[in-house]
Amino acid sequence: MEHIADTICAPATSTGTSAISVIRVSGDKALSITDRIITFRNGDSSSSEGYRIKFGTVRGGIDDVLVSIFRAPHSYTGEDGVEISCHASPYIVKRILELLVEEGARNAGPGEFTQRAFVNGKLDLAQAEAVVDLISSRSEASHRVAMNQLRGAYSSELRTLRDKLLELTALMELELDFSEEDVEFADRSQLKSLLEEALLHIGKLVDSFRTGNAIRNGVPVAIVGAVNSGKSTLLNALLGEERAIVSNIAGTTRDTIEETLMLGDILFRFIDTAGLRATDDEIEKYGIERTLKMIEKAEIVIELTDASANGDIESVSVSPDRKLIRVSNKTDLSPALPGTIGISALTGSGLDELKSRIVESVRGRFDGSETLVTNVRHFEALTRARDSLISVRNGLGLGVPTDLVSEDLRSAVNELNCIFGDSGGIDFKAVTDVIFSRFCIGK
Amino acid sequence: MEHIADTICAPATSTGTSAISVIRVSGDKALSITDRIITFRNGDSSSSEGYRIKFGTVRGGIDDVLVSIFRAPHSYTGEDGVEISCHASPYIVKRILELLVEEGARNAGPGEFTQRAFVNGKLDLAQAEAVVDLISSRSEASHRVAMNQLRGAYSSELRTLRDKLLELTALMELELDFSEEDVEFADRSQLKSLLEEALLHIGKLVDSFRTGNAIRNGVPVAIVGAVNSGKSTLLNALLGEERAIVSNIAGTTRDTIEETLMLGDILFRFIDTAGLRATDDEIEKYGIERTLKMIEKAEIVIELTDASANGDIESVSVSPDRKLIRVSNKTDLSPALPGTIGISALTGSGLDELKSRIVESVRGRFDGSETLVTNVRHFEALTRARDSLISVRNGLGLGVPTDLVSEDLRSAVNELNCIFGDSGGIDFKAVTDVIFSRFCIGK
Repeated sequence: MEHIADTICAPATSTGTSAISVIRVSGDKALSITDRIITFRNGDSSSSEGYRIKFGTVRGGIDDVLVSIFRAPHSYTGEDGVEISCHASPYIVKRILELLVEEGARNAGPGEFTQRAFVNGKLDLAQAEAVVDLISSRSEASHRVAMNQLRGAYSSELRTLRDKLLELTALMELELDFSEEDVEFADRSQLKSLLEEALLHIGKLVDSFRTGNAIRNGVPVAIVGAVNSGKSTLLNALLGEERAIVSNIAGTTRDTIEETLMLGDILFRFIDTAGLRATDDEIEKYGIERTLKMIEKAEIVIELTDASANGDIESVSVSPDRKLIRVSNKTDLSPALPGTIGISALTGSGLDELKSRIVESVRGRFDGSETLVTNVRHFEALTRARDSLISVRNGLGLGVPTDLVSEDLRSAVNELNCIFGDSGGIDFKAVTDVIFSRFCIGK
Repeated sequence: MEHIADTICAPATSTGTSAISVIRVSGDKALSITDRIITFRNGDSSSSEGYRIKFGTVRGGIDDVLVSIFRAPHSYTGEDGVEISCHASPYIVKRILELLVEEGARNAGPGEFTQRAFVNGKLDLAQAEAVVDLISSRSEASHRVAMNQLRGAYSSELRTLRDKLLELTALMELELDFSEEDVEFADRSQLKSLLEEALLHIGKLVDSFRTGNAIRNGVPVAIVGAVNSGKSTLLNALLGEERAIVSNIAGTTRDTIEETLMLGDILFRFIDTAGLRATDDEIEKYGIERTLKMIEKAEIVIELTDASANGDIESVSVSPDRKLIRVSNKTDLSPALPGTIGISALTGSGLDELKSRIVESVRGRFDGSETLVTNVRHFEALTRARDSLISVRNGLGLGVPTDLVSEDLRSAVNELNCIFGDSGGIDFKAVTDVIFSRFCIGK
């Protein structure tokens, strides 16, 4: 790995009303720069061991601070570094950063500390990505998945899979070595069984993304029903009590109203859809089209019927792996229909039962210990790797020359290497730049 | 001082997107509770020296954390304590706090850490109050004043004053001891000169509040002028470029529009007032009444005239210690009037010159090293103390019995003691409860 010469600094805590702020400094000159801007009572930071705290005063009497000292390689980045803990005043933070820059540090870009940890071999790429997921995790399940990935269990499983593929490659190359003798290798069955095993494994990982994505971004729940059945009122009633922890989902296309909500420590993503009814209106038809697509994407479909209306009840058709919850609304006006949960979105009656049913319908699904893919980049790489392996299988079946088949295999290996960032001669710069730019400053 | 038996915990950093969060724990059991929820690689925190950092894993694999260890009395609160530095996930912070509480810690109330520092004699009351001011300081001047107070220079000056008053009391009591012999003390002139000296000092402190308050809350600037002279447009133009650092003032009555703005590292508070014109309308008269009162309170008055209008120019009368800046607006339509700064609030021309003039008009006023009172509580106590001293002076002049005069003197001493929190047998509970409830949690 190339050695990084410059020293970076950034606030590591967010500004806002709080007691303390922490400023991170990392790099060869982290300690000497710190010693130039902070006067310590006993001995400077450069001559200190790591894992020590020193009390000092910032130049110009800006603040009295506590400085935590880390020595390479025993630090987050793997470099020498300090964490300066000061009073949480925006003015003080600004002045300390200015002094650090005056003395030769550089303001860090987003994710640059974690990028250095990656470059210095403290974390692989999948682990580095887990840091972002961990910070933004809100539920027990998303926290567990991110922590599993950060601790390396996820990378380790993918490395095992990659090693299987390398074994396959070795077997094929063995065959290639003998190809001039024009013999087909005796043990082709071993090759095929290894391939099937890898395909099964990679298939499970690709499929796990549906669950992984639900954990990370919320289980998608579509509320569908006739116009005026009270869909928006229900959505507002569900969100109402929990308004404080509701937020919009960053980065999603908001072509429908989506709100997230924690129920029983599981994150749900509620989708309010256009009302369903027979119509000749082209625009309304388009909305209904889209509603039907949302139903396809949802894990849970809440079918809402107005109990007080005497209209036809048209049931939605939902594929068997989706959970359907039938609900009668407006029970303050009329009794619930048979086989439905009766609620009044207006008065709030029956909402607790509905919430329990929503949680129950996915309960247990997120408790498993199997590896889940939550990251779109990984999902896409795994999907491409699976496609390459399918090509390998087809190629072998059709008797395609082994060296061509072998190329597909290598491309699958490269896809996996890209996930955890092992260099197989690939240029990672483009990949890593995109990844670390998603981080916040100071991480 | 009474020993505090329980152990408290709270987040010390604000939640938001950032790299790390810090949780503070303080009290007799801070280290043993930490050891029960965190597994360390080498040795637990209870057996560690202070000013050390340990790496460990929170129970249930919640997170890998860095723990800074402090041993009484060498800590912020003066008690044993730790700072747990974890990933800045709201879920992780919540879980760690839950574990700490499960093991016997208690969630801290606002300001409780600083309150303990006060109770344990690490800070006096004025220093403790300076912590809040320091955290919220935005300008160089407000930072300097708060830091001066935190470092104890402010308290030390007030203690000197208090000691002068105690000396006065001693002189009077000496006189009382001899009162049975019915002699008036020879050295009454010394008593009088000490009293005048104290009155001069306390008067300076009381008067400094105007400057101190301007530093802390912003120099009040009133924009006045005829209806339609463009006052609001000017206010918006001034704030426009700096919108990012503009905020409302917390805790002020918003019966006029007030916005704060940093210019040249000085905080200004702009007040948009009702337009001035001769009127019979009662409601409008009331508004103009109020405008005139705002002018009284302002340090700087910007008198805005519409250069394009041919109306009478009625100048505002401003007392000599207020700065008056005359401005012609709408110079895009007509030339500026003589003796005014010409601007166009609409196009922005002339605004830079106006800003410079605003800054220049107070330049130098905030650079002094004299002690400034910025705290309303202190201002009120000093005002009461001054009033008591004036009673003493009057009493001595009128020949009031010395023991009655002496009571006024004691009340002045008590007022000063209340500022820095020295107990003179006074019940501080009420005073300190109000003070620390203004702090944020975790401080």
